[in-house]
Amino acid sequence: MKDMRVSQPDWLAADWGTSHLRIWGMRANGEVIGRQFGDCGMSRLARNEFEAEFIKLADPFLSNDKTLDVICCGMAGSRQGWAEASYVGVPCRPPGMTQAVQVETADPRINVYILPGIKQNTPSDVMRGEETQIRGFMATNPDFDGVICLPGTHTKWVHVSAGEIVSFQTFMTGELFALLSKASVLRHTVQSDGWDKHAFLQAVDRSFSRPSAAAAHLFTLRADALLNDPYENVARSQLSGILIGIELAAARPYWLGQNLAVLGSHEIANAYQLALKAQGLEVTMAQSEEMTLAGLKHAHFALRSVPSNA
Amino acid sequence: MKDMRVSQPDWLAADWGTSHLRIWGMRANGEVIGRQFGDCGMSRLARNEFEAEFIKLADPFLSNDKTLDVICCGMAGSRQGWAEASYVGVPCRPPGMTQAVQVETADPRINVYILPGIKQNTPSDVMRGEETQIRGFMATNPDFDGVICLPGTHTKWVHVSAGEIVSFQTFMTGELFALLSKASVLRHTVQSDGWDKHAFLQAVDRSFSRPSAAAAHLFTLRADALLNDPYENVARSQLSGILIGIELAAARPYWLGQNLAVLGSHEIANAYQLALKAQGLEVTMAQSEEMTLAGLKHAHFALRSVPSNA
Repeated sequence: MKDMRVSQPDWLAADWGTSHLRIWGMRANGEVIGRQFGDCGMSRLARNEFEAEFIKLADPFLSNDKTLDVICCGMAGSRQGWAEASYVGVPCRPPGMTQAVQVETADPRINVYILPGIKQNTPSDVMRGEETQIRGFMATNPDFDGVICLPGTHTKWVHVSAGEIVSFQTFMTGELFALLSKASVLRHTVQSDGWDKHAFLQAVDRSFSRPSAAAAHLFTLRADALLNDPYENVARSQLSGILIGIELAAARPYWLGQNLAVLGSHEIANAYQLALKAQGLEVTMAQSEEMTLAGLKHAHFALRSVPSNA
Repeated sequence: MKDMRVSQPDWLAADWGTSHLRIWGMRANGEVIGRQFGDCGMSRLARNEFEAEFIKLADPFLSNDKTLDVICCGMAGSRQGWAEASYVGVPCRPPGMTQAVQVETADPRINVYILPGIKQNTPSDVMRGEETQIRGFMATNPDFDGVICLPGTHTKWVHVSAGEIVSFQTFMTGELFALLSKASVLRHTVQSDGWDKHAFLQAVDRSFSRPSAAAAHLFTLRADALLNDPYENVARSQLSGILIGIELAAARPYWLGQNLAVLGSHEIANAYQLALKAQGLEVTMAQSEEMTLAGLKHAHFALRSVPSNA
C-alpha cells in the first residue's frame, strides 16, 4: 500500500527481514508521519539490488534537497544482506549506533546505518532484529529484569538483566508448525484456521509434562482424523499445543522464577500467554511492530551524540 | 528397469505404496523369476488409472492364455487407492486372504487381491504395508515374541505376541527429518550426505536422556554452522540423532525389556540399530523388501485353501 506524499520526515526507521521491508517516516521528535510496508524480503535479493528496492519503497519520503538518515535492523545486516553488520556477543546491551554499519550507497538522499544482531557462543545462537525489539521493550519498561519470549518462526527466549542481554535460546517452533501443517501428512488434518482453546491447552500440558509425548502425539492427529473424523480445528490447535508444550519444557530454565514478558504479534503471542498462564505464570505483553519502532527510535536518539564507525 | 520376458510366472506379488510400485513374478513354489519396479506411486493416481498403470509395469509377466492371481499390499488399499481394503483392528494376526479385497478389473489376465492394513483405536493409529512385512518376519522367525521397529517416513513400533499384532505406535521421524533437512532453515547446514557415527550417537543420547533437549537442539545446528562453520556431515548426523533420540524416549514403553527386531532398509535400519545398541539393547535385523516379499508369499500359500470374500 503506497501512502500519499504528505510532509517530509527528518529520518527513516526501517525493519528489513527475510520476507518483508517496513519503513517509517519519522520526525526528529519521534512522531511517525507515514509508513511504507512491502514484501521485498531480503532473501530474494542480491547485494546490489538492495538500494534500488529500498529507494522504490521509500520514495514517498524522499526529496532531492535533503539527505535522510536511515536506521535499519533485521536480516539486511546478515552476510547475504545489504551490508554485513557483524554480531555483537552476549552479554551486551542491544547494539546501538556505535556498533552500526554505515552502508555505501549511491543515492545522495539516504544515509543508511544497519544495526548488528547478537550472537552467543555457548550454546551457539544468533538473532537479528529481535535485539531491536528488546531495545524498544527496555526503553518502554526501564525497570524490567527477567525473561522476554519473542514467539515467531524462530522463537527466542531472552534473559535480560541490568539493561543487558545475558543469554538466549532459539526454538524452531514456528517453522516446525508451518512445515507440518503445510507440507507433511498432517496437512489434510490441520487445514482449518479454527481455534480450540481447550484442545490447545490439553496438548500443551501433555507435551510439557512429558516432552517425549510430543514425538508420539504427532501421527495420532492424522490417525484420529482417519478413524474418528474429528473437527479439523481441534487438530490444528493440538498441533500448536504439542509444539509449544515441548518448547516450554525445554525453556524451563529460562522462565522458572523469572519476571516474564511475551513480545510478539497478537495471535501467536496470545497462544504463548495462554500456555504460560496455564503453568500459573503472569506475563507482560508487548506488540512486536511497536517494539521494533520503539527500538529504532531509541537507537536514533543516540545517533547525533556518537561518532559513526562507518 | 524393464526385465526381459523370460518365463511365465504362476502368480504376481505386488507392493504398491505412496511413491512406488513393485511387482515380482512368482512361481507356485515361491521362487522369484523376475521383478519390475516403478515409481508410479498411488498418490499420483485417480482410482480409474490404477489398472492401466499396473498392466503397464506387469506387462512382461502377462500372457493372453492365462489369468494370474495378484496379491498386493500397501497404500493401494486405502480409501483413495485402487480399491478400499478396510482396516482390521488390533489385536489381530497380519491380515491374510480371508480379509483381502478382490478388485474389479477389466483385463482378463489378472485377478487382483489387496490385503488390508491394520488400525488401533486407542491411541488412534493405522498402518498399510508394514503388516505384510510383519507377516513375512513372523513366517521367517516363527518363535519371535517381542517388538518390531520398522523405521521409515512414518516409523512404526509394533508389539507382536503369540502370532498376533497386539499394539503399535507411529512416529513421524522420517518425515520430520526430510522436511527439516530439505525445507527448513537447516537445509543449508545439513546438505552433505556424510555420516558421523560419534556425532549421531551423542545427539541420540542427549535427546533420549532429556527429550525436551530435542526442541532446544535444532536451531543450535544452524547457529553452530554460522558461528563455527563445522563439517556439514556432522550436522546431518546430529539432526538424525536428535530426532531418533526423542523417538526412542517416547517408544520406551515398547522396547523396554522386550526382544527387539529392526525391519527396514539398510541405511536407516543401521542407524536405529546403532542407537539401540548404545542403550545396551541387542537387535535382530531384517530387510524390508525381503520381508514384504516373504509376507506376500505367505499370504499366497493360503489363497487356495480359503474362500474368497470378494
